[in-house]
Amino acid sequence: MNDNSDMTINAYQAALAEGRAKPLDWWNSCTTRIEQREPEVQAWEALSAETPKLSGDLRDKPLYGVPVGIKDIIETEDFPTRWGTGGYLHSPSSLVNAALVTLLKEQGALIMGKTVTTELAYFTPGKTCNPHDPSRTPGGSSSGSAAAVAAGMVPLAFGTQTAGSMIRPASYCGVFGFKPTFDTLSAAGVKSFAPSLDTVGWFARHIEDICTTFSALTRAPRIAPRDDLVGVRVGVHSLPSALTFEDDVERALLDAQARLEKAGAELVPLALDERYEALVEQQKVVMAYEAAQTLASEYSRLSACMGPKLVELIEEGRAIGYPRYREAMLAAASLQQELTTVFETQVDVILAASATGVAPKGLEATGDPVYCRAWTLLGVPCLNLPLSHGKSGMPLGVQLVANRWQDDRLLEIASTLMAKEATE
Amino acid sequence: MNDNSDMTINAYQAALAEGRAKPLDWWNSCTTRIEQREPEVQAWEALSAETPKLSGDLRDKPLYGVPVGIKDIIETEDFPTRWGTGGYLHSPSSLVNAALVTLLKEQGALIMGKTVTTELAYFTPGKTCNPHDPSRTPGGSSSGSAAAVAAGMVPLAFGTQTAGSMIRPASYCGVFGFKPTFDTLSAAGVKSFAPSLDTVGWFARHIEDICTTFSALTRAPRIAPRDDLVGVRVGVHSLPSALTFEDDVERALLDAQARLEKAGAELVPLALDERYEALVEQQKVVMAYEAAQTLASEYSRLSACMGPKLVELIEEGRAIGYPRYREAMLAAASLQQELTTVFETQVDVILAASATGVAPKGLEATGDPVYCRAWTLLGVPCLNLPLSHGKSGMPLGVQLVANRWQDDRLLEIASTLMAKEATE
Repeated sequence: MNDNSDMTINAYQAALAEGRAKPLDWWNSCTTRIEQREPEVQAWEALSAETPKLSGDLRDKPLYGVPVGIKDIIETEDFPTRWGTGGYLHSPSSLVNAALVTLLKEQGALIMGKTVTTELAYFTPGKTCNPHDPSRTPGGSSSGSAAAVAAGMVPLAFGTQTAGSMIRPASYCGVFGFKPTFDTLSAAGVKSFAPSLDTVGWFARHIEDICTTFSALTRAPRIAPRDDLVGVRVGVHSLPSALTFEDDVERALLDAQARLEKAGAELVPLALDERYEALVEQQKVVMAYEAAQTLASEYSRLSACMGPKLVELIEEGRAIGYPRYREAMLAAASLQQELTTVFETQVDVILAASATGVAPKGLEATGDPVYCRAWTLLGVPCLNLPLSHGKSGMPLGVQLVANRWQDDRLLEIASTLMAKEATE
Repeated sequence: MNDNSDMTINAYQAALAEGRAKPLDWWNSCTTRIEQREPEVQAWEALSAETPKLSGDLRDKPLYGVPVGIKDIIETEDFPTRWGTGGYLHSPSSLVNAALVTLLKEQGALIMGKTVTTELAYFTPGKTCNPHDPSRTPGGSSSGSAAAVAAGMVPLAFGTQTAGSMIRPASYCGVFGFKPTFDTLSAAGVKSFAPSLDTVGWFARHIEDICTTFSALTRAPRIAPRDDLVGVRVGVHSLPSALTFEDDVERALLDAQARLEKAGAELVPLALDERYEALVEQQKVVMAYEAAQTLASEYSRLSACMGPKLVELIEEGRAIGYPRYREAMLAAASLQQELTTVFETQVDVILAASATGVAPKGLEATGDPVYCRAWTLLGVPCLNLPLSHGKSGMPLGVQLVANRWQDDRLLEIASTLMAKEATE
């Protein structure tokens, strides 16, 4: 079997079932691709030293033989974990795998290695560059996972989002990135940053693979595209809405609207008032207050090793009092509930900007998560659709947002849109 | 200084400030008490081998010189962690302390040791017995922390609640036990069981110490009793309400009502419909589904070492599909919001049963958390008040429940009640 980089997971399973592929074919083509691309992209913190054993008992599992990348804040028995610290925190081997790693292995997946992340999943970048232009950031904090998928090194990789760490790198790297409803996947063994925000998600080059993975890990029924989007109401509203879009973002949003309408969806006016706008600031308060608590031990012992951005955030968080934190949590809970009504009565999904523009030049920063902060605080599922490109030719996505626990509906809508595109 | 076992934290700070006590006096009296009581009670999994150093820089901190017990599912650099497994999981030393441990040390607290817990904080008991009657359970899963505080071995100890693991042992052991609003304290470094339920809380013999600790750890303003409870509306409603109370529980609830009324509170009728009753079953679904995910790695490698109750729960959880889990999470979110309206319009707090009776005889089980499950799923703050005793003479508490993020109000009401009692 040749290069599988454009194959879907389901197509590979079919090829296996029909004898057109062997269980380690995808692994082998991925390792070849990594040899070619890794010297430039630098997506990996650690790679599997040997070809894995793949038990035939797992042959019927939906992720059988699928090579996967794991963000290096997720603990593993077989690989070291460094949490993006460059080594000031370093565990050669965890006592047990993060829950996610075992859940993946139980579904037949093969762990290719650990992907580069920013320092403790905050803003100090790792070594990874954008596969579409090595002079640009891949985004963060799930930098290596997004870049590895974009470069064809693995079909599937896992990351986390606390502010905009899934959707932004997905947009910058031109891949699908899915942050499910908060609490959908267990974060056991995943380094905490801000526990009421931290959400495990995944990247893939095909929407179908996003769906397959969702069903495999949650035991949700299989998700398939419908004929069209007739009857689907799409509200267009980015949070915050007061920012002026760059031309690239404006065009990407208009482009997405046109595609959605063409597939049969109805665009409906949607107004979210200034309390929703304020969620961007509330998210910053929650993130800083919780990070100051959660990283108290690292800060007390290792602050001299930490990057200045992380130290600044923790010190900001230590200065935030309980009443201010509570106010932010109450605002989020209240609007979570109100937004449920919006989704139940006005729109099925919301179309919003994923990022402020294409991946910025330079590797010294990972870009701005501002368009993701409010949605993360609301705990709603978000999906980056890699539909467009900026004037520079770099990828640029938009995100679809649904109500909490409507992940299957969101994925169905996105699948339908992509299926319509593919048949044009 | 003599035995401090009846001193409050604030009284000790005053004694220190006035030169009537020395910084390690409380530590020393606790170690003496532990020598006396530990052979029988068996509250500790690991104890500090030496007298700690206490930096004078921390002299002004609210927990200066306060000895503290830490449940052995909370990771520590200076003590081993075994998660109640008897050793099939064993870490001689964690890479970093759990966030909570550092937050306590920063406030001047001294870590006395690790307290006994049930297996991975589920139902298989550890070695601890009830300090009031060694033939009875202390409750679980925070068994050792509740027993150590009840036996006067430490004034303060930390535990967690996923079903009823704070309130039930507090009731059985006759101490205050406080489970704050979900997400109030970071669970970083605390073993996950069911992440949307797991809540860090603490035990003390004085309500004032519960309050002091709350303010010290969250930076909330200091909480003090008011003159009386005039204007405070108390609804009386245990979940589930269909169970028939044992006589002891009935009497404890009537006794608490009488005390609340005597302090000036108004008892108001409160009806929570059958959807609230169903939360008890929803909690079981969430707990099983999430535990099956969260403990996937332990189960895959160590199920042969695990107790049958834990294996049964995980297998039950593995059989629950996503639609059923989602239904439970949606029910909880919806009633969380409705309950907010109940608290905003009808009652300030709810008085409810803490447990089905006094601590049961025998050490082979830890009692039934049924009266805690719904409140834990709702994420509301709960406080066990150790006000009563059963016919056997064993302690029996009741719990006060408030709206989410009304922890300070709840603690103010409880403080006022206890202050009125003390001045009678």
